[in-house]
Amino acid sequence: MARTTTDAGRADGTPLPGPAAPVAPARRGVSRRDLLTGGLVAGWGAAIALGVDSARRPAPTAATPAPEPLNGTVVVPFHGPQQAALTVTPQTHSIHTALDLRPGTDRAALARLMRLLTDDAARLTQGRPALADTEPEMASTPARLTVTFGFGPGFVAAAGADVPAWLAPLPAFSIDRLEERWSGGDLLLEVACDDPTVLAHAHRMLRKDARAFTTVRWVQQGFRTAHGTSAPGTTMRNLFGQVDGTVNPAPGSAEQARAVLRSDGWLEGGTTLVVRRIAMNLDTWDEVDRPGRGASVGRRMSDGAPLTGGVEHDDVDLDALDGTGLPVVNIAAHVRRARATTPDEVFYRRAYNYESETDGAGLIFTTYQADPVRQLVPVQQRLAEADLLNTWTTPIGSAVFAIPPGCAPGGYVGETLLEG
Amino acid sequence: MARTTTDAGRADGTPLPGPAAPVAPARRGVSRRDLLTGGLVAGWGAAIALGVDSARRPAPTAATPAPEPLNGTVVVPFHGPQQAALTVTPQTHSIHTALDLRPGTDRAALARLMRLLTDDAARLTQGRPALADTEPEMASTPARLTVTFGFGPGFVAAAGADVPAWLAPLPAFSIDRLEERWSGGDLLLEVACDDPTVLAHAHRMLRKDARAFTTVRWVQQGFRTAHGTSAPGTTMRNLFGQVDGTVNPAPGSAEQARAVLRSDGWLEGGTTLVVRRIAMNLDTWDEVDRPGRGASVGRRMSDGAPLTGGVEHDDVDLDALDGTGLPVVNIAAHVRRARATTPDEVFYRRAYNYESETDGAGLIFTTYQADPVRQLVPVQQRLAEADLLNTWTTPIGSAVFAIPPGCAPGGYVGETLLEG
Ligand code: HEM
Ligand code: HEM
Repeated sequence: MARTTTDAGRADGTPLPGPAAPVAPARRGVSRRDLLTGGLVAGWGAAIALGVDSARRPAPTAATPAPEPLNGTVVVPFHGPQQAALTVTPQTHSIHTALDLRPGTDRAALARLMRLLTDDAARLTQGRPALADTEPEMASTPARLTVTFGFGPGFVAAAGADVPAWLAPLPAFSIDRLEERWSGGDLLLEVACDDPTVLAHAHRMLRKDARAFTTVRWVQQGFRTAHGTSAPGTTMRNLFGQVDGTVNPAPGSAEQARAVLRSDGWLEGGTTLVVRRIAMNLDTWDEVDRPGRGASVGRRMSDGAPLTGGVEHDDVDLDALDGTGLPVVNIAAHVRRARATTPDEVFYRRAYNYESETDGAGLIFTTYQADPVRQLVPVQQRLAEADLLNTWTTPIGSAVFAIPPGCAPGGYVGETLLEG
Repeated sequence: MARTTTDAGRADGTPLPGPAAPVAPARRGVSRRDLLTGGLVAGWGAAIALGVDSARRPAPTAATPAPEPLNGTVVVPFHGPQQAALTVTPQTHSIHTALDLRPGTDRAALARLMRLLTDDAARLTQGRPALADTEPEMASTPARLTVTFGFGPGFVAAAGADVPAWLAPLPAFSIDRLEERWSGGDLLLEVACDDPTVLAHAHRMLRKDARAFTTVRWVQQGFRTAHGTSAPGTTMRNLFGQVDGTVNPAPGSAEQARAVLRSDGWLEGGTTLVVRRIAMNLDTWDEVDRPGRGASVGRRMSDGAPLTGGVEHDDVDLDALDGTGLPVVNIAAHVRRARATTPDEVFYRRAYNYESETDGAGLIFTTYQADPVRQLVPVQQRLAEADLLNTWTTPIGSAVFAIPPGCAPGGYVGETLLEG
């Protein structure tokens, strides 16, 4: 049963029914009934409803313990009030792709586009080929595949709606060295999966179906600790070797919902996403010793525990003084500067490491929040003013997207913007 | 027990002793005794000796079945008569890196370099930090990490030895569109692992220690089906969606040993590696229907079974005729052209998919063989003359390396070339 939830707050998906065949037949997948059930259990509160699903698998006995279902067969429900990426423990791999609309793509064309892409996503995430899938077998092991759509300012304008003030480039920060090739975009596809081959296929199917309407602006591939490497719940490490992601609302938790959900107009039940590509200079970081590394963040390199004592998930005591009366946590330590000073400044981070064959390494730093200007910008501004990590990190890309709510079976992502 | 071997012919590594801690302490790892035992069981014939290891884990009872050890803790022995990459089922991720020697790097410097890199590899693959490891915690979950070293012609010449005639660029083939940036190189590092973060760390430690002696020529990142996605033994699919790797000696098998092992001079017990970067045009491939796709290879897209019937691991019957008296398998089908016509033409393929953020997709096609000129070139020549797959594939990089034998504890990879 372990695969259906990792802890009380998270819904990480349910295995496809039936034993896993070495090569799964193309049409294996879940039934319409499963889809409907899936729709009902998606999103926040899913952990409770997931009991529904486990009834589909036979109970193990002491004599014949049920084998763990293969991770490849684990499905994250697609339909539901929210898009799914937020509600699952981040998958091993992600691809963020920003597309630009071709000139003349109007509201009706956008509706056609989003119907098409939603249909692809609804199928692929459930282990079924897309319509006219050229490699249908590559859909049969979804491995927690999720597809998330985001709309940039150009998309909303082309839809004929008012572009919200926050749906614009973030204000320029002194530390920024932004490059066009990693910034902006009209339509975001975020595809995430525990399997890189399945991910490549899903990504390609979506891009193909978007091709008549869009061109590719940028693609960012990221990775985290692989499924099966560490015990579930282990916080990932970034390429500086830091435990990264400790203080963060849990996926699918009430705290996360409070931080990210909007309640206005076509974005009701949706959220916003900021994607920042942050280069990390591993060469100069190498020159820093272990105490200096810990000091830059305010947490220990070894296990992410606060420099002021305790274990990883304990709070850092920013007021603690050492024997000489100086603060234990440096005045410009990352967590001191980044910590929320008001409940408004809480957002959800879902970062991925990147390492390019030719072009450096870093973090694909992504945050979900109801309002980037109110929640993220004050924190980023504080970090731009002082943050020891700035010594080795440089933002080189930035983009802001509206993340519309999810949809029910028969509906499509974006319908709240594009219908009526 | 399932993790120690996947089938009788393969040794896929042994779990680190002890329960997996969510954040493993830096110094956790295997003892000297383990290392020695590991050394004895490395390489061909390991499957038999692996019984030694399983004694270290408590026997499960019916009431409390042993949990599967985390894949992150699975260790592939480093020391042994052969370098390890050949003897394991290919890991999810690989990075092939070609380095060029800095001018003036002489035989003594090469010995220092290879001692250093061997020490790094011996530690990192066993779940221990490298000496002066800047992120020691990232070594604690090796996830079947292997490190393999190869020597290009420049390396052997700098060592003052005769460069064998086969250790040179392959002859030019009519289909080649080779680019300098993906070709050649003096020293190859191949690092492979089921975890992309662990892999990035190991790769970086090795590159750092090589920096005083070398510059980077090219880096190629590849992926296959992830650990846990499909049942063990499932053949991977490439980005054309083809089942790729069916007819291939099993890792660690006697057939593989026969095909790859050399028995001469400093390469006794070693082998050779050819790395070809082959671009795959997914856009034009998309225009081909399912029958056309199957015909291009001679095997079915759905499951890799021969077009002449049977299941995946059955032979394709090249002589079969259809009702009209024509061959079932196209005269230029890939398997017809690629199949070994003499025992000499058998080699071991260990391909990885690649997909660049900016630069296309394809296959990092690698083969191990005792002699590339005698074994690989005739097959590549036949394929260059006629192979339906040429319609959509283009070799854009090529490099040849000598793969020296492995070493015992205290020794180093390359000692047979660099000592005495
Ligand atoms: C490459 C750049 C960055 C690196 C390497 C980095 C790394 C870290 C690390 C190691 C931690 C401590 C562990 C944790 O709680 O996750 C942390 C915490 C945090 N970071 Fe970053 N970070 C980066 C950029 C940013 C940016 C740009 C922001 C926001 C604009 C940010 C916001 C936060 C927040 C809110 C916390 C939790 C603070 C707390 O309440 O303790 N980080 N980061
Ligand atoms: C991107 C380029 C290539 C693709 C997509 C590809 C794909 C395939 C596929 C799908 C198969 C059938 C399944 C299997 O037995 O693995 C196969 C077989 C094979 N390929 Fe390739 N291949 C490529 C390049 C090459 C090259 C360059 C060589 C050698 C120079 C080669 C040698 C072989 C061999 C020896 C077999 C087994 C033939 C048999 O005995 O049945 N392939 N390949």
